[in-house]
Amino acid sequence: MKLMRVGPKGAENPAILDADGVIRDVSAHVADIDGSALSPDGLAQLAAIDPASLPMVAEGTRIGPCMGNIGKLCCVGLNYSDHAAETGAEVPPEPILFGKAVTSVSGPFDDIETPRGSDALDYEVEIAIVIGTRAKNVAEANAMDHVAGFAVFNDVSERTFQTKRSGQWLKGKSHDSFGPLGPWMVTRDEIADVDNLPMFLDVNGERRQTGNTSTMIFKIPHIVSYISQFMTLYPGDVIPTGTPPGVAMGMTPPGWLKPGDVVELGIEGLGTQRQTVAGDV
Amino acid sequence: MKLMRVGPKGAENPAILDADGVIRDVSAHVADIDGSALSPDGLAQLAAIDPASLPMVAEGTRIGPCMGNIGKLCCVGLNYSDHAAETGAEVPPEPILFGKAVTSVSGPFDDIETPRGSDALDYEVEIAIVIGTRAKNVAEANAMDHVAGFAVFNDVSERTFQTKRSGQWLKGKSHDSFGPLGPWMVTRDEIADVDNLPMFLDVNGERRQTGNTSTMIFKIPHIVSYISQFMTLYPGDVIPTGTPPGVAMGMTPPGWLKPGDVVELGIEGLGTQRQTVAGDV
Repeated sequence: MKLMRVGPKGAENPAILDADGVIRDVSAHVADIDGSALSPDGLAQLAAIDPASLPMVAEGTRIGPCMGNIGKLCCVGLNYSDHAAETGAEVPPEPILFGKAVTSVSGPFDDIETPRGSDALDYEVEIAIVIGTRAKNVAEANAMDHVAGFAVFNDVSERTFQTKRSGQWLKGKSHDSFGPLGPWMVTRDEIADVDNLPMFLDVNGERRQTGNTSTMIFKIPHIVSYISQFMTLYPGDVIPTGTPPGVAMGMTPPGWLKPGDVVELGIEGLGTQRQTVAGDV
Repeated sequence: MKLMRVGPKGAENPAILDADGVIRDVSAHVADIDGSALSPDGLAQLAAIDPASLPMVAEGTRIGPCMGNIGKLCCVGLNYSDHAAETGAEVPPEPILFGKAVTSVSGPFDDIETPRGSDALDYEVEIAIVIGTRAKNVAEANAMDHVAGFAVFNDVSERTFQTKRSGQWLKGKSHDSFGPLGPWMVTRDEIADVDNLPMFLDVNGERRQTGNTSTMIFKIPHIVSYISQFMTLYPGDVIPTGTPPGVAMGMTPPGWLKPGDVVELGIEGLGTQRQTVAGDV
């Protein structure tokens, strides 16, 4: 299934993308696409619905972030071997984790806000893991049982805030609109090989990032197992897993985003996003 | 007002501590002590209730974390001048922020779990700010208008996970039970001078931390204003503000917590907590 949320900001309704690419309102069956809907029982209930029985959503309706009520956003950094090589950074011996405010999450086509004082706005195409069942100290062999599905995520970052404003990346990762998520969450059963998904990101039509989940240093089962040693994961938690080469920070000179720029990104099987960079908000 | 939550883990009811120190159940009036109850309207509704009209909570009922549905936990690090001096660290030019999983939050008398593989378990008595209204790019002069109140917080930390496991403090801050919060949230109007509150922490009856909010480097209005530049704060967000001298990491040899240890901590006007350290969970 492809699960999504449509409607005005903060008042999105749950929806399903049917096999013909038609968005259908599922709000008569579930309150939201959140931890409750993404549990195995919740997903089974949704799967039992005939999409043709659901009302079609009007064309032009805004597509919101594909998840509501996100409990935690736990991100993995520097997780692509070709990206690590590009930046000259050493491959980390274990996954780098960092926090990002859940309030940064936005719709896949919403504008990216430029924070006041920003001078180094960057993008990162990433595959995000969506958790479906509670995970604490889970073994790698069982980790995928805790995954409900996957979605495209743009881990928008302000590099000056992230690295030059007194420690810890949280500051550069958390502004409103820094987390476009969607357009939909694809359930795990629909992704044949999550370790071989091509991904891209363009700025103003110019290809900036070309990657494939095959070059991830720490694979998804390892990431879920690893994080579950440090914190308990719950249905509705989201884990962005790092970005391939080509970020603005790695260019000479850096190709920072500026107001008016258009960012398009996507991952095979998970859909595409498109954002315009807005000015100070 | 002193607002709290009582009952079994995950099924706490909202409550008020009355002027005689009696805990009274307020679940007939509000669903939870969360962002909704802590808005100015929510607090006004609670203040209009005669505590004597509320049922008393049975003695011995577990006291849970004083807040439910916490949206974000945004922590300030190295924020006491005497603690900075003690550790030899330079005073940071601007507040250090770091993320901590909201699922780490626990009741003020719940056990502290020792994570698997832990060898450097530490404590930190802190005053936590509870947000009452949305704050984005707010001026320091108006920042206190966005604060609903304050509570005691133990920012339990695993120092090996925090500093020696591939970057970013999140890993050492986020285990279940690493965030005892409460016993109650005290509304702002009941704290005459938040910049002059003595605080302490004992381990097995031995005084480890002695401090006062007067030595905070960045004061509460500055912290709220500062964070609101990087992320939007919402009612129900919680901001632990750093710890005074005396953490286990600063002792020679380090006085790490071990199973069976009893930690007691408190801040004048905000109550006291008591935790026992449990083994691997």
